[in-house]
Amino acid sequence: MPEIDFWYSIGSTYSYLTVMRLPDWARANDVTVRWRPFNVRSVMIDQKNIPFAGKPEKSAYMWRDIERRSAKYGITARVPAPYPIPDLQLVNQVALLGLKEDWGIPFTRESYRIWFIDGLPAGSEPNLSEALHRSGQDPAEALIRSRSDAIVKELADETDRAVRSGVFGAPSFVVRDEVFWGDDRLDDALSWARLGHVT
Amino acid sequence: MPEIDFWYSIGSTYSYLTVMRLPDWARANDVTVRWRPFNVRSVMIDQKNIPFAGKPEKSAYMWRDIERRSAKYGITARVPAPYPIPDLQLVNQVALLGLKEDWGIPFTRESYRIWFIDGLPAGSEPNLSEALHRSGQDPAEALIRSRSDAIVKELADETDRAVRSGVFGAPSFVVRDEVFWGDDRLDDALSWARLGHVT
Repeated sequence: MPEIDFWYSIGSTYSYLTVMRLPDWARANDVTVRWRPFNVRSVMIDQKNIPFAGKPEKSAYMWRDIERRSAKYGITARVPAPYPIPDLQLVNQVALLGLKEDWGIPFTRESYRIWFIDGLPAGSEPNLSEALHRSGQDPAEALIRSRSDAIVKELADETDRAVRSGVFGAPSFVVRDEVFWGDDRLDDALSWARLGHVT
Repeated sequence: MPEIDFWYSIGSTYSYLTVMRLPDWARANDVTVRWRPFNVRSVMIDQKNIPFAGKPEKSAYMWRDIERRSAKYGITARVPAPYPIPDLQLVNQVALLGLKEDWGIPFTRESYRIWFIDGLPAGSEPNLSEALHRSGQDPAEALIRSRSDAIVKELADETDRAVRSGVFGAPSFVVRDEVFWGDDRLDDALSWARLGHVT
């Protein structure tokens, strides 16, 4: 079965499209997808890659594009959602902890739903606790565990691995040594996984 | 018949994909496309939108993505091509002049071929004269006419029109009031032209 690493950060806007459509897409295409949260913000600051801040025209376009593509995929989205979110490290630590257990994908999707449908920024309260609650976790307990030194280090290590793979933004898909950036490259990644070229 | 404005600048890398595939694509889909050169560099400087300069990771990805997508479309591309090109105003003035006559599309395509296949930057000699020659023009005469005050003003006016339409990068496709940015949004633009939504 083809395998794809899905590198994402809760906090990335276009990742919303992928996060919402990916489970059905993976089933329909018989693909194994590894969900790998990382800290895209620290990577982008390191690489001086600031795509939207201070760019009102490009930001307005981004929201309109997400709105049109959400409709295409049948995904509800109230745009613009609050952006940027104040902090993305903690929420991605929570997602990482959840993925080591069995609630990382539901937590990620609920964080995004609360952000893009209810308009409450991911990574802050009340979104954090509500997303944990909806994914069957005790919020206070999960937040303590997500702040542990081990999880802090693991998110940093995963971020380093993403960078070493050539990832510079989110969402990205990595197939063997090949990087595909953007929700709109998901099918290119699948084609690469199956055939070694883009169709 | 659906109508699409194709805003491009010779000098934009991803526009290579569109420029090379657009004539066949428009015929196959029965679409009228208006080719509209503008000065994307002045727009991006005004909007502080500098996507690749000083960003080696993102630049390397951009070339790899163009290479994979060129193969997908059956387009020859030797990448990385020389980038950025030193000047893009003059060559887009030439394209604009050519589009008022009947040689603007061939000139645009030849400029790109000489840049992406022969490795000679668009907008400089010998690319300029060779592309004019290949599109049936006398280079010296066409270059004089392309530098006229009227053509200089017309490219600036077209650039203003692009910005007023919401265009901030190249290639962009405008259908009625809707902007689609990037070669990878060409089918979204067609869908919008036909149906008023993205499929």
